[in-house]
Amino acid sequence: MQDKGLLSQLIQNLCCLPGVGPKSAQRMAFHLLQQDRNGAVQLANTLIQAVDNIGHCQVCRTLTDQDVCEICSQSSRDGSSLCIVESPADVWVVDRAAAFKGLYFVLHGRLSPLDGVGPDEIGADLLQQRFAQGEVTEIILATNSTVEGDATAYFIAELAKKYNIQASRIAHGVPVGGELEFIDSGTLSHAFSGRREMV
Amino acid sequence: MQDKGLLSQLIQNLCCLPGVGPKSAQRMAFHLLQQDRNGAVQLANTLIQAVDNIGHCQVCRTLTDQDVCEICSQSSRDGSSLCIVESPADVWVVDRAAAFKGLYFVLHGRLSPLDGVGPDEIGADLLQQRFAQGEVTEIILATNSTVEGDATAYFIAELAKKYNIQASRIAHGVPVGGELEFIDSGTLSHAFSGRREMV
Repeated sequence: MQDKGLLSQLIQNLCCLPGVGPKSAQRMAFHLLQQDRNGAVQLANTLIQAVDNIGHCQVCRTLTDQDVCEICSQSSRDGSSLCIVESPADVWVVDRAAAFKGLYFVLHGRLSPLDGVGPDEIGADLLQQRFAQGEVTEIILATNSTVEGDATAYFIAELAKKYNIQASRIAHGVPVGGELEFIDSGTLSHAFSGRREMV
Repeated sequence: MQDKGLLSQLIQNLCCLPGVGPKSAQRMAFHLLQQDRNGAVQLANTLIQAVDNIGHCQVCRTLTDQDVCEICSQSSRDGSSLCIVESPADVWVVDRAAAFKGLYFVLHGRLSPLDGVGPDEIGADLLQQRFAQGEVTEIILATNSTVEGDATAYFIAELAKKYNIQASRIAHGVPVGGELEFIDSGTLSHAFSGRREMV
């Protein structure tokens, strides 16, 4: 057996990364120790700093190391349009892909009564306060296309209706570039029921 | 754009791990910050400790946090048999798989004159000292089956000959469970030239 000390511990701790099993962890540990010790130290320092300083934005609840995140503090953004997503990673993805120039709100999950996730857990009170302020006139529901994601979207749309805010849901259907042959039947039936007239 | 601060820096630093691109790094960062902050802190601490304390074993040159690694300090090991490998990861793999109970020596590379890797870089002097001590009577050359790996094996075998030490090379051929149809021609020609008589 190889040394059971620090090296094994490092390999074990690397396994806490998503998608990393014992084999990759071993490869990572040997790589860092043999070829990139500076990188390892830098990674360690950034991890510590990130854990200490990154919290939730007070306005949109995304992850940030400031009180209010960069997106929320940009004055060029259109505050009347609010995109509602499940996780901070979704903000990142939508903001990179879509030409959306409004603001975001992160639910940190989806309604799931069986797991004890109710309106309080997804920040419904904060969202309602924001609706009450009157700046928001349109919300775009970009929760995932799962049973819970759909239920959450409906719940928030109902909430928005009370404040006369227009709610829309992002389109679900056949991915661009996707071939019908390889699309699952759930997506396909969605695509049919959500068909749009051609001009 | 998402916050360009600490979060981007963390994602960028995670990319220094082998096999981790921007997408996986992003996934890892969000996972650690949202679901496993303790794991992140632990990983950071272990990284720092590992970089500070893990060096090379004075006897076999593998990675260890002690002066002499666990394998070299085991008295139950057979000191007359020495397995010579290219990297510490190889020690780990061989020791887990093979029923080898001797000791190891790590070259940390292979002879490669074009890259400036000569006998000094692979610890030939330390190896020669060890041969001169007289305890080693057999070496098993487990360098990789590449041009450089083969050349390194021949070089060390020549060195061993001076001390009347028997040198052998691990077998290269069709992997156990492998089907001929999917084996590359290099391996197959190796397997033919290295054929053994059946009893």
